[in-house]
Amino acid sequence: MRTRAAVALEPGKPLEVMEVNLEGPKAGEVLVEIKATGICHTDEFTLSGDDPEGLFPAILGHEGAGVVVEVGPGVTSVQPGDHVIPLYTPECRQCPSCLSGKTNLCTAIRATQGQGLMPDGTTRFSMLDGTPIHHYMGCSTFANHTVLPEIAVAKVRPDAPFDKICYIGCGVTTGIGAVINTAKVEIGAKAVVFGLGGIGLNVIQGLRLAGADMIIGVDLNDDKKPMAERFGMTHFINPRNVDNVVQAIVEMTKTPFDQIGGADYSFDCTGNVAVMRDALECTHRGWGVSVVIGVAPAGAEISTRPFQLVTGRIWKGSAFGGARGRTDVPRIVDWYMDGKIEIDPMITHDLTLDRINEGFELMRQGKSIRSVVTY
Amino acid sequence: MRTRAAVALEPGKPLEVMEVNLEGPKAGEVLVEIKATGICHTDEFTLSGDDPEGLFPAILGHEGAGVVVEVGPGVTSVQPGDHVIPLYTPECRQCPSCLSGKTNLCTAIRATQGQGLMPDGTTRFSMLDGTPIHHYMGCSTFANHTVLPEIAVAKVRPDAPFDKICYIGCGVTTGIGAVINTAKVEIGAKAVVFGLGGIGLNVIQGLRLAGADMIIGVDLNDDKKPMAERFGMTHFINPRNVDNVVQAIVEMTKTPFDQIGGADYSFDCTGNVAVMRDALECTHRGWGVSVVIGVAPAGAEISTRPFQLVTGRIWKGSAFGGARGRTDVPRIVDWYMDGKIEIDPMITHDLTLDRINEGFELMRQGKSIRSVVTY
Repeated sequence: MRTRAAVALEPGKPLEVMEVNLEGPKAGEVLVEIKATGICHTDEFTLSGDDPEGLFPAILGHEGAGVVVEVGPGVTSVQPGDHVIPLYTPECRQCPSCLSGKTNLCTAIRATQGQGLMPDGTTRFSMLDGTPIHHYMGCSTFANHTVLPEIAVAKVRPDAPFDKICYIGCGVTTGIGAVINTAKVEIGAKAVVFGLGGIGLNVIQGLRLAGADMIIGVDLNDDKKPMAERFGMTHFINPRNVDNVVQAIVEMTKTPFDQIGGADYSFDCTGNVAVMRDALECTHRGWGVSVVIGVAPAGAEISTRPFQLVTGRIWKGSAFGGARGRTDVPRIVDWYMDGKIEIDPMITHDLTLDRINEGFELMRQGKSIRSVVTY
Repeated sequence: MRTRAAVALEPGKPLEVMEVNLEGPKAGEVLVEIKATGICHTDEFTLSGDDPEGLFPAILGHEGAGVVVEVGPGVTSVQPGDHVIPLYTPECRQCPSCLSGKTNLCTAIRATQGQGLMPDGTTRFSMLDGTPIHHYMGCSTFANHTVLPEIAVAKVRPDAPFDKICYIGCGVTTGIGAVINTAKVEIGAKAVVFGLGGIGLNVIQGLRLAGADMIIGVDLNDDKKPMAERFGMTHFINPRNVDNVVQAIVEMTKTPFDQIGGADYSFDCTGNVAVMRDALECTHRGWGVSVVIGVAPAGAEISTRPFQLVTGRIWKGSAFGGARGRTDVPRIVDWYMDGKIEIDPMITHDLTLDRINEGFELMRQGKSIRSVVTY
């Protein structure tokens, strides 16, 4: 079949919207009509050429929602008509990682996914002249139709709006999941969120959901404050206004009983390795947990004195919020539909596919929280 | 009263054995006759002058065992005749740290202990000319008698031999505790121990106690192998014999089912920050936990790519094995008496106080696992 897609032909250039060929689903695969897709910093990271593993030409996009159109042989868990969210972190439930019960990082199709291919080592997309087009993060939601492995779709309730729940395919789950799956924040905790972009806002609403007492947001831009407060931020620090952000957080979290101070949990949503260090060091001696969410530039390294760890701080990271996609994503859709979490105010721009490059530009300029393309 | 002690008069000089003055216990303190004390690398670190927080003159030693001789006003948990192990990490059971249930790092007397003083801000030791002598790590076990806060002694069974259980005051608890309290290793785990000195051996026997399947020891010295095997090591790597120790561990831990490989847990017992990085990076994608135990030189920093954390590895540290001294140390003494753990083969040298400097020299030359001074 043919479908319309925004194709990344080469790094650093705008996407080109065009007709492409799409082969039907092979065994274990499903054909999905994408109804909506968000535009995420990770798409921009790859499009810019900074991603050392970026492949071209490719159809980017990994934050979508749509409807199953056709299933390949052997597919049993979904059928045509099912509403689904594509999963860049699949959940096969059979590999050593899934069966460990300790991680969401399914490794069943990791190798081919990293090469921009379906599990059989080929691509379903091609240019009209026959040139193969790479898949991206196993999703390629910047196409109106895409093919995905069965283990890479989460079946969700049919009454949820595509143009909102597509954000659950990456940003929402990454932020909320880091709080509940990775950090396992408990009621009454004191937490700090570095970076109040889309991920940071979702960490904040995750903390509100988890019942945190103190939700401190840190950002260089004061304009981020009102929206963060709307999602549950209780305190704000602009590092430009304090001598030392670590010390400011330590002071702010002291109580008459606890004169040591420090956050119980911290989250880096910046990708800046110096901020990751602050995030670790502002946590409480003895039990502080710091979670790295942001993606650092290639080659960048985090560092600290080991004394920080020996005195009880824990440094960890989170990918896709530690969520098992097929199991956890449908629950997060339910939470949205039940009003336990909010998404609508974060979708700041609605676009058509023809205007997708405007969405990238809004993101680069920091003018959007999330732009969503509807087909 | 007067007692005999080995006094550190200045950095880089041998200890001097002499008579010193010792004031009796004040409120909340106990006078203990030390019967035996181990000599630990931390004592050497301070004596050498490398410890930026080292104070002189001081009576070093923090790994002892003895008998309560006298108690000050208000002391209720021990009485004269009780056998005790001094605790450089006290357990007050009332401070924010103890009450958190999340850490063993009691902060009740941290400030004064760090200044070489008893909680009231004074010292009980002095030279015969009246010059005050600092306490060390709140213990000062290189004196035949010492004064300790009540919250800094663990009462233990009276039939346990002082010259063996003194090692539980630091090395044994640090190693075993890192396994059971900090890492919480489960039956069947694969673990790596970097550095097969005294702490490494105790990590190894902790892993054996925890039921680990694979206990890989890493050391530059092949001579360490037989003793480590005796304590439970199942595999040995000398980094000089492999191209890349991280890759060697990853390969060694692969199974026909799990072709990702990596250790479930790793422990740094070297204090070398480059080794700490290897220890993190050799753990399993998705769930590997690496525990820093070794004390790094002042100013040294650990580093890694944040990708290591984002893909599921956890970096943490352990002080005094995460053990709450008054609660956990008596249980470890029981384990020794019941034969669940071994100590005797690790006590390689018995000395008298007059020969304490020989013990330091044996340690510097790597000829001892533990030298113990008996009074």
